[in-house]
Amino acid sequence: MSLLDLLRTSLPADRVVLDPDIVATYHHDEAEWAPYGAPLVVVRPRTADEVQTVVRACLAHETPVVTRGAGTGLSGGANATAGCVVIALDGMNAIVEIDQLERYAVVQPGVINDDLRAACAEHGLWYPPDPASSPWSTIGGNVATNAGGLCCVKYGVTRDYVLGMQVVTGTGDLVRLGHKTAKGVAGYDLAGLMVGSEGTLGIITEITVKLRPLQDPQRTVAGYFDSIVDAGRAVSAVAAAGLTPSALELIDRQCLVAVDAWKNMGLSVDANVVLLGRVDTPGLIGDQEAEKMHACFSEAGATWAAVSTDAEEADALFAARRLAYPAMERLGPVLTEDVCVPKKHVPEMLSRIEQIGIEFGTTIANIAHAGDGNLHPLLITPRDDDEARRRAQAAFATIIDAALELGGTVTGEHGVGLLKKDGLVQELDPVVLNMHRAVKAALDPQGILNPGKVFS
Amino acid sequence: MSLLDLLRTSLPADRVVLDPDIVATYHHDEAEWAPYGAPLVVVRPRTADEVQTVVRACLAHETPVVTRGAGTGLSGGANATAGCVVIALDGMNAIVEIDQLERYAVVQPGVINDDLRAACAEHGLWYPPDPASSPWSTIGGNVATNAGGLCCVKYGVTRDYVLGMQVVTGTGDLVRLGHKTAKGVAGYDLAGLMVGSEGTLGIITEITVKLRPLQDPQRTVAGYFDSIVDAGRAVSAVAAAGLTPSALELIDRQCLVAVDAWKNMGLSVDANVVLLGRVDTPGLIGDQEAEKMHACFSEAGATWAAVSTDAEEADALFAARRLAYPAMERLGPVLTEDVCVPKKHVPEMLSRIEQIGIEFGTTIANIAHAGDGNLHPLLITPRDDDEARRRAQAAFATIIDAALELGGTVTGEHGVGLLKKDGLVQELDPVVLNMHRAVKAALDPQGILNPGKVFS
Repeated sequence: MSLLDLLRTSLPADRVVLDPDIVATYHHDEAEWAPYGAPLVVVRPRTADEVQTVVRACLAHETPVVTRGAGTGLSGGANATAGCVVIALDGMNAIVEIDQLERYAVVQPGVINDDLRAACAEHGLWYPPDPASSPWSTIGGNVATNAGGLCCVKYGVTRDYVLGMQVVTGTGDLVRLGHKTAKGVAGYDLAGLMVGSEGTLGIITEITVKLRPLQDPQRTVAGYFDSIVDAGRAVSAVAAAGLTPSALELIDRQCLVAVDAWKNMGLSVDANVVLLGRVDTPGLIGDQEAEKMHACFSEAGATWAAVSTDAEEADALFAARRLAYPAMERLGPVLTEDVCVPKKHVPEMLSRIEQIGIEFGTTIANIAHAGDGNLHPLLITPRDDDEARRRAQAAFATIIDAALELGGTVTGEHGVGLLKKDGLVQELDPVVLNMHRAVKAALDPQGILNPGKVFS
Repeated sequence: MSLLDLLRTSLPADRVVLDPDIVATYHHDEAEWAPYGAPLVVVRPRTADEVQTVVRACLAHETPVVTRGAGTGLSGGANATAGCVVIALDGMNAIVEIDQLERYAVVQPGVINDDLRAACAEHGLWYPPDPASSPWSTIGGNVATNAGGLCCVKYGVTRDYVLGMQVVTGTGDLVRLGHKTAKGVAGYDLAGLMVGSEGTLGIITEITVKLRPLQDPQRTVAGYFDSIVDAGRAVSAVAAAGLTPSALELIDRQCLVAVDAWKNMGLSVDANVVLLGRVDTPGLIGDQEAEKMHACFSEAGATWAAVSTDAEEADALFAARRLAYPAMERLGPVLTEDVCVPKKHVPEMLSRIEQIGIEFGTTIANIAHAGDGNLHPLLITPRDDDEARRRAQAAFATIIDAALELGGTVTGEHGVGLLKKDGLVQELDPVVLNMHRAVKAALDPQGILNPGKVFS
């Protein structure tokens, strides 16, 4: 029996998608210029058993499986390959359980990040990881890439919240990894190994995440700067002052103008760079920390800085931060960087990015989780301009070189996917790459799980 | 050339220890009744290169390597096997770097936990993981077992603080895993995989740990209870009240009496069980939380409870908690449990432990990281009483059964070693055990790293 027939006979009819118009929407994620092929079929399972059925069928037919959530990835990790089976988990979007006492949630992988956050809030609980894509991206995708976000500077990344999971393995078994208790060291941390493995070691069908009590109210500190390097100096100053902001975001004028052009939020300001800091320490101590952050901004050369007393204004600024990427995308293809450098090197790295833009004649806008040293230069090119594309790609590679030179990493939170495969080879010792290959072969002996992603 | 000659010719003379009296001190860790054998030799390397030299020699001679730090483990994970080479890393105890701005420390594996904490404090920084063994145990050992401690209930376990490491692999290579930046998702989380792998996947020669700003001052809430089940109810009440204590420890009368008998601290109290809670939330909010915890204790049936205003008294109580295990050891062999159950099942689990003690005629004292649901029943037997030993071992196995029945894990923070190997088989799906074997074979293809530990 052909694989297609096998899938059709073993799954409910609506799970198997062949309509070319619909299939086309599952070809690739949001990574610009990352290669992709046409899949044989898209399957939209509704249960873990159905996922297992698909994997077993693919094992029998030696056909690669590419798993995806909402497809908001920025590295090509979810891109289909020619003839593969795409498993789209966006339909598995149930919040199975929220346990208020134990402070965990059990969710299917297709749950949208913001939906989980809203459901937790009803129980007085908080799921911190908040990638800028939180209104669209899924928890499964967040786990697959170990997504970060705005709050990481104080509250860590997705990895820090994953307690356990259910996984369909590369051998077609359905297993549970990790634990639901507060602690647990029984055996290897295979659940942790799955986090950030971009669908190459297993397919996650359920996730148990740790929750925190609801976040305390935040104060917002905004600062305007003439130069991106001044803003970078303010970021270093905040770290040097011993502050732990609950967010510290950088947005440059190009992004704000693009957001205004799209949403007419009236944000265009007399500044080339805006820094947005937040402090959620309760009480007077938090007020003092906000004032300290304000002083750091001023001393680093802010042309204007203030502790905002207007929650609406502050929320608008953070909404603009979240909209920056889609707003830039409206202007043309955007190649998104994701380097992360030591905090002390943020000014130097921002300066190098500026130079690289000039050197390659590429427009580079900047958003950054600056407090983490996690920078997202956005390389924007005119549509259908191959020469500009090549220059942007060269600039992209040069930014990676610079980040590695400064002791950084090629990807802070987006994952390797396809766009950072060369970067990974630069970053890792060849022996460590071989360790990756050995682990991959151990857990996916037939090599059917998202082959060709992360490393070759 | 024999392995011994190879080691003697390739290492400085003082690294190779053959004196049987000294070698005997490296035979086993502190796990009671876990088997061990006489090693061929003990090597005490001073550098990563020397560790690599030893591993390569052992690979050439197909000889198992057992790595250990201070030997304070409680599961037998560091026990020597007959004819093995013991690599003792207690001499590699340099704090290489503390970076105040980036908030990390780079340490050799033999650094004592308390020494790192003291060094960090001088920079206004804090390394939270604080196993009760912190005055003696090493960071390397803490990482190898993913050690927990008193602060985990709020601040997480060792895994949450490991950014990166240098490792000698099972193939004798010296590599770096992980990163020093705040975020990083370049490739699989192999550094995380090493945490808790108990020396079976690699030998850690350097560790980079994340640090936090110094902890805020803590308030201590003490409560006395007539029964351990009442105390367990207080623990559940604290969780249900939405509190996040910075510690929540349980000590029973047997432990306090044993500490007094040893150290004459004058702690014997009119209580069968003492609960010690701590709150480090700053300011008024923290004061309110301490009062709330006090109310939880009282409502659960505390015969006496108070928010302590006497720091010395509070420190003495926590010192007693840390001394409980060595104090009990003075009375006879102690078999130490380490089960972890959901918080809501703490009263039920404590009640079952009490029943099991009666059923098997075994004296069971209790200390617990109660706020985590991580319980350490201590099974104490008279010396040289084989019958009592067998009953204690049967009670030990029955406690594991009960923890698994309640949705718990066989080991919260001590690791599997030898004592929990059967428990691991009970806890994990056979497919997951096979995943462990596959990963082990991938990273230690010759099977020389601590073979026979964790799983067979």
